[in-house]
Amino acid sequence: MIKILTVRTGFNEELVDITAKVSAAVAESGVKDGLACVFTPHTTAAVTINENADPDVRSDIILGLKSMRIESADYAHIEGNSAAHIKSSLVGCSEIVIIDKGRLLLGTWQGIYLCEFDGPRTREVYVKII
Amino acid sequence: MIKILTVRTGFNEELVDITAKVSAAVAESGVKDGLACVFTPHTTAAVTINENADPDVRSDIILGLKSMRIESADYAHIEGNSAAHIKSSLVGCSEIVIIDKGRLLLGTWQGIYLCEFDGPRTREVYVKII
Amino acid sequence: MIKILTVRTGFNEELVDITAKVSAAVAESGVKDGLACVFTPHTTAAVTINENADPDVRSDIILGLKSMRIESADYAHIEGNSAAHIKSSLVGCSEIVIIDKGRLLLGTWQGIYLCEFDGPRTREVYVKII
Repeated sequence: MIKILTVRTGFNEELVDITAKVSAAVAESGVKDGLACVFTPHTTAAVTINENADPDVRSDIILGLKSMRIESADYAHIEGNSAAHIKSSLVGCSEIVIIDKGRLLLGTWQGIYLCEFDGPRTREVYVKII
Repeated sequence: MIKILTVRTGFNEELVDITAKVSAAVAESGVKDGLACVFTPHTTAAVTINENADPDVRSDIILGLKSMRIESADYAHIEGNSAAHIKSSLVGCSEIVIIDKGRLLLGTWQGIYLCEFDGPRTREVYVKII
Repeated sequence: MIKILTVRTGFNEELVDITAKVSAAVAESGVKDGLACVFTPHTTAAVTINENADPDVRSDIILGLKSMRIESADYAHIEGNSAAHIKSSLVGCSEIVIIDKGRLLLGTWQGIYLCEFDGPRTREVYVKII
């Protein structure tokens, strides 16, 4: 089963918490024991797992990625969003999460985030459960 | 089934499109519904998913990674390729792609790339389908 | 089956080789053919695959990540460890390794590492075999 999530991002760059939606897809699947692959089919977005408590961490991740030198290189790609493509490859377009007793086996402070690097846009996230 | 792809890289650093080879491995497997794990067994190479349209994006990714500060640190490793090892860990040596109706479920603009960071060399990529 | 590994880190930042522990979990599972998902449930740690020969590579990875600009940005998160969170998202909290003939299918020079970015601490690593 593949569940397709739709996520509307509101800023040029932001992390959007999709943990509840992924958890709902796992519950809906009825799978008790397996893996969930969370994959975004875009090349200027990514999926990551990070802190779910202090929302400052989400904005600090955007800030820290901006503070690297990748924004200012002399890029050839005419759309002007090469840094967003690079961030997508650095963070990665998917995450794998273990399913145990029908639930996502995340750490206490872990949430799953869609990373928008070239928004705002409407993004998709595929959740495949095996 | 594990399919081993052989990729000859032509430059010190480049992204080589391996999407067609991975798709062929999926077709050959006969699997209609599952996951493909695309894994490179090297420590100065990586696997990523990024834009398949404008080839400038591929060279911009190499350029952007070079523009980070990691090339010039005072490394101890005697082979002189520590930055390539770090890029391998940042981008990651594998990707997971969902298989749906016998095909790789990639976004419209997504291709799968072997990232060479210390070539030219002959590289291997393992494709495991489950 | 999920195997939980406990890893005591000794420094603020370091890479700890967990390959033997992951291999033992695979052997214990009896699985001959599949995938191992190696996942750490922490937001200031990561899992990576890199060189297992020269230990300088491990310290060079820590050094290279420090040499990026992410340490010095003007972060909001009050714990002061935002760079560790960003490194966790860049390197990623999991790796997938193919299991073939009952063994991890790693390259000759590849080992699996827990990356500590905010230690020393006691960390957990989950190994899920399918």
